Amino acid sequence: MNKENKIKAAIIIIGNEILSGRTQDTNTSTLAIWLNSIGVKINEVRVIPDIEKSIVDTVNLLRKANNYVFTTGGIGPTHDDITAASIAKAFGLKYEVHKEAYKILEDYYQPGEFNEGRQRMVWMPENAELILNPTSGAPGFSVENVFCLPGVPSIMKSMLGGLKNKIVGGEPILSRTISLRTVESEIANSLSKIQDQHKDVEIGSYPFFHAGKLGVSIVIRSEKQSKIDSCNSQILEFIREKKIIIVDR
Amino acid sequence: MNKENKIKAAIIIIGNEILSGRTQDTNTSTLAIWLNSIGVKINEVRVIPDIEKSIVDTVNLLRKANNYVFTTGGIGPTHDDITAASIAKAFGLKYEVHKEAYKILEDYYQPGEFNEGRQRMVWMPENAELILNPTSGAPGFSVENVFCLPGVPSIMKSMLGGLKNKIVGGEPILSRTISLRTVESEIANSLSKIQDQHKDVEIGSYPFFHAGKLGVSIVIRSEKQSKIDSCNSQILEFIREKKIIIVDR
Repeated sequence: MNKENKIKAAIIIIGNEILSGRTQDTNTSTLAIWLNSIGVKINEVRVIPDIEKSIVDTVNLLRKANNYVFTTGGIGPTHDDITAASIAKAFGLKYEVHKEAYKILEDYYQPGEFNEGRQRMVWMPENAELILNPTSGAPGFSVENVFCLPGVPSIMKSMLGGLKNKIVGGEPILSRTISLRTVESEIANSLSKIQDQHKDVEIGSYPFFHAGKLGVSIVIRSEKQSKIDSCNSQILEFIREKKIIIVDR
Repeated sequence: MNKENKIKAAIIIIGNEILSGRTQDTNTSTLAIWLNSIGVKINEVRVIPDIEKSIVDTVNLLRKANNYVFTTGGIGPTHDDITAASIAKAFGLKYEVHKEAYKILEDYYQPGEFNEGRQRMVWMPENAELILNPTSGAPGFSVENVFCLPGVPSIMKSMLGGLKNKIVGGEPILSRTISLRTVESEIANSLSKIQDQHKDVEIGSYPFFHAGKLGVSIVIRSEKQSKIDSCNSQILEFIREKKIIIVDR
């Protein structure tokens, strides 16, 4: 499939808690759904530990290979929050107090509450652009095409609205899902033929178990509704021929 | 933190459905918890698309940098299942019918049911070692230090038992979690001092929202129970001093 002309992004999930299995990452899915809706395709996701060299190397590699890079995690006030310092290092920028962020948090907290720990959160790469945080005050930031968001899913999600004007996507990627009471081997050949005829459409086949029953979801993805419709008709045709039942998942 | 002498693994999640956000990956967490329990540390996770070049390049890079690599996804019977062919290519091996796998599936299915689609699942890199599948028949496989598992979480999980004798881990990585009714900025300095004194212990701090209340979980990780206990005592000390409440999550 030729996807070379797409707006591409990579996600870097920073955090030992994901690598240890303690925490289930959900930020990938949240970011991916949002990015798809504005026409940005996720090329790759990497989950890396809270280690400066890993962050620096991964950011420097992926920011050159993608239109956008999103990081989540590591921008809080504790010793294991090293994302901002690492991004400064990756870009060769000073790591310093961000005056606007300082002012935001000074206003956000009650007098006396803006303590040393919290003040750590206003250290950023010099001239970073802020990403406002409507949930808990402390802003994220961006440097060039790298956007740094927090790891807590609800806070991360609440900050995406503030990114809308900063991310320029392509055509939104549309999709259609058809869920069937069948097994993959039953439809593999028919599906393969349709994929061969529509090389610029992404057709995926995903088995599921739901309420004790087996099924397969076929997902058709493209920027063009007409291409989705065309694949959809051909799929419905072989479904009818094979007398396969369509189900809601 | 010096982790250089650990047994290291990387996970490669293969599948457009994860990158599109349609499916929430849970295999990382399942694999990570299991690998930790047998003393294997996850270095890195990559989520990549169903594209041959991505699979070949990623596998060849990570298999050299890690003791073990685990892939999930792309070993079913449909056109988008290209993991086995890509692994053969990565290792420069023939891609051919695996006789033992053929026999397993021939026995598994009712007469006449082992159709063309299903037969696609016995194509593997030559001399691959099988990973038996107690759930749905079709085996996974390994080549050298690369272990290829299916993407469906329940099937993937059921196959880990069959890997036990093939993966040689180090000392299991132990952990202790202390959950507090506080915010990170309140404990950041105290925690940082303890981390500085125990550089070979991994101390993480993770904010949470639960039942409408804010809290922080501190996670201490090490192979040595004595080191965990020592950090734990120091943490309990500052918790007492600061009059912070310990909560169950």
